[in-house]
Amino acid sequence: MMNIAVAQSGGPTCAINASLVGVFREALKNPTIDAIFGSVNGIEGIIGNHLVDLKSMILTNDDMELLRQTPSTVLGSCRYKLPDHHSDETVYKKIANTLKQRNIGAFFYIGGNDSMDTVNKLSEYFRSIELDIKVIGIPKTIDNDLCITDHTPGFGSAAKYVAATMREITRDSTVYSIPSVTIVEIMGRHAGWLTASSAVLHAMGETAPHLVYVPEAEFSPESFLRDVRQEMSKHKAVIVAVSEGIEVPEGVQSGCVDNFGHKYLSGIGKYLEGLVRGEIGCKVRSIELNVMQRCSSHLCSKTDIDESEAIGAAGVRCALAGETGKVMVFRRAADVPYTIVIETADSADIANLEKFLPEKYINAAGNNIRDHALSYFLPLIQGELNLVMEHGVPKHFAIHESLLK
Amino acid sequence: MMNIAVAQSGGPTCAINASLVGVFREALKNPTIDAIFGSVNGIEGIIGNHLVDLKSMILTNDDMELLRQTPSTVLGSCRYKLPDHHSDETVYKKIANTLKQRNIGAFFYIGGNDSMDTVNKLSEYFRSIELDIKVIGIPKTIDNDLCITDHTPGFGSAAKYVAATMREITRDSTVYSIPSVTIVEIMGRHAGWLTASSAVLHAMGETAPHLVYVPEAEFSPESFLRDVRQEMSKHKAVIVAVSEGIEVPEGVQSGCVDNFGHKYLSGIGKYLEGLVRGEIGCKVRSIELNVMQRCSSHLCSKTDIDESEAIGAAGVRCALAGETGKVMVFRRAADVPYTIVIETADSADIANLEKFLPEKYINAAGNNIRDHALSYFLPLIQGELNLVMEHGVPKHFAIHESLLK
Repeated sequence: MMNIAVAQSGGPTCAINASLVGVFREALKNPTIDAIFGSVNGIEGIIGNHLVDLKSMILTNDDMELLRQTPSTVLGSCRYKLPDHHSDETVYKKIANTLKQRNIGAFFYIGGNDSMDTVNKLSEYFRSIELDIKVIGIPKTIDNDLCITDHTPGFGSAAKYVAATMREITRDSTVYSIPSVTIVEIMGRHAGWLTASSAVLHAMGETAPHLVYVPEAEFSPESFLRDVRQEMSKHKAVIVAVSEGIEVPEGVQSGCVDNFGHKYLSGIGKYLEGLVRGEIGCKVRSIELNVMQRCSSHLCSKTDIDESEAIGAAGVRCALAGETGKVMVFRRAADVPYTIVIETADSADIANLEKFLPEKYINAAGNNIRDHALSYFLPLIQGELNLVMEHGVPKHFAIHESLLK
Repeated sequence: MMNIAVAQSGGPTCAINASLVGVFREALKNPTIDAIFGSVNGIEGIIGNHLVDLKSMILTNDDMELLRQTPSTVLGSCRYKLPDHHSDETVYKKIANTLKQRNIGAFFYIGGNDSMDTVNKLSEYFRSIELDIKVIGIPKTIDNDLCITDHTPGFGSAAKYVAATMREITRDSTVYSIPSVTIVEIMGRHAGWLTASSAVLHAMGETAPHLVYVPEAEFSPESFLRDVRQEMSKHKAVIVAVSEGIEVPEGVQSGCVDNFGHKYLSGIGKYLEGLVRGEIGCKVRSIELNVMQRCSSHLCSKTDIDESEAIGAAGVRCALAGETGKVMVFRRAADVPYTIVIETADSADIANLEKFLPEKYINAAGNNIRDHALSYFLPLIQGELNLVMEHGVPKHFAIHESLLK
């Protein structure tokens, strides 16, 4: 008999709790696993020996379904990067102590790039001191920028929210008879996956988004203004999708000052809004989808949630098969009918690397997404969950605040 | 036999098209009504004789259901205020000409405050020239600030989106172990109804929103900072709901300048974010719900959509009964079980007036909503539609752009 531990890390998504359910439900099936610990605030909970007993908190299948529908990380999160164990072993010793003391034979880390670095370093360290504790990474990020895997858990739900909301914004933007430009700022500092996914609307007969700017394509204010003018000659209401991370000449995001002398960040949307207002002079609005694009579980993708649970479960089977230092990944066997196979990759091949939008998805002008990219995005946003409602609002699974800290 | 005309006006909501369906479906039932015209871009379409034949566009019950789920105004909108007909009759003559030429015996105007002013002025003018054309107002606004009516069509859907999103933002904001403040800016220039509605989360065991600021209560930066500090002593992640229209000392919203010298508006959320960052120095984020709160039909309130259709239908019956210059209103017969009766009010008693949040709904400190107000808000956000999906995204009813202009 052994115990296991699971933790969640990095920025929230709609699917991290589904992966937790996957680990939990698969572990319950296995008679060699006894306690299932949740680490509070990612790896910090292991370092500080702050673990909770998940079996005493997730009691029924209804609890698991509710948890699958609950956005963000029910166990909290962290942004913690392990040092190199050759130069500083202190924190590694704390981690090993907690895991040994609790008789934990396998640790599952649900997270993005940085978390896969933790998986890599921890598994290497355990090998170096010949400690038999398996470390397995379960990927997640709305940015979809992890290598090897076809896509990342959490991305499909974010893409579905962005597409649906972009369509609604398009309806909202076309009501008046005067010409207008609406700029929608979407998350993605280095990779334009989420912004590009908004082009799925083209498969539904929408002309919007009329312009799509991603960090992978070169951007200049001059060509942007030329693009907008050209689209305005064709459409009364021009809709622009833009990644927060596109590179602008002088670094707009370095801070503005409001009337009260308070400094604050100005996003790329506000910058482009200012450009259009100043240079074209038409009605213009910028909209930041902000954290809603990563936490709007009320419109999550069933495909994403189901896959996120499945990849968590596969992680448990992988550890029980004796593997360590692995990250679970999706391989797409086919677009039609959409078929996904879960495999493993070495954490060293994923940690700290980024995957960018392929050039072939971006049009020649660098201002929109080609139609043949849509078969990549469309399967990921399919299906809806039967939401559990409470007084007209989606209900969330709650672990009592006092247990978490 | 007579024809009728219907138009939509003012800012978009999720429920304006449902009211259009109400007018349309009720008119179909009546053998004395022949053509049902839609006026493009509100009253502008009547002035410019730009009408479309709705019977040739809305063909099936499925079309009507899809239209009920489609946000914004399918016939376009306008912001047009009629002059006094005693001082300038020109535009009135154009309107009368169009209506007479098309044999229109009743005109239904779906809109907010300004549109009810149009209903009032038009019906008075027609009386003064003894022209027998009925003019009936169907209210709509997410602001919920119309007098006499218990609430306005469109408000419930906006409130449901705000509450659900605020709950998701709360999950998103509580993941890290460090203290934080999250400020959510909600629409409402003069009336705090929509911001106040976010307090429905308290009925679901949420402590958030911890602070609620509405234009009806006095605001000062000093008491705001004191409030935030006090809530931070109780909660790791403090969630603040604030109306865009709260009055701040020097008028923050008068424009900022970004690094490129472009002027743009800074909302109240950014202002409060700057205050917290400057004076408290903790992690802080502001989120503007922007147009999503008025167009997110994917999470509309079934109660709101059904009532919006019903009040449109009641408008047709009212005109057929010989009334004019009336606005349809809701009277709440009971909170439990929630019971609404549709009645009429004189347009003169509604036009250009605003209804504010009653003082009894606001707590003594002016920084939150009292629990007894929740029985007002909760019935309005109940129920969900069975959304028609298309490739994973809610489908919308589309009238071809070329028909609209």
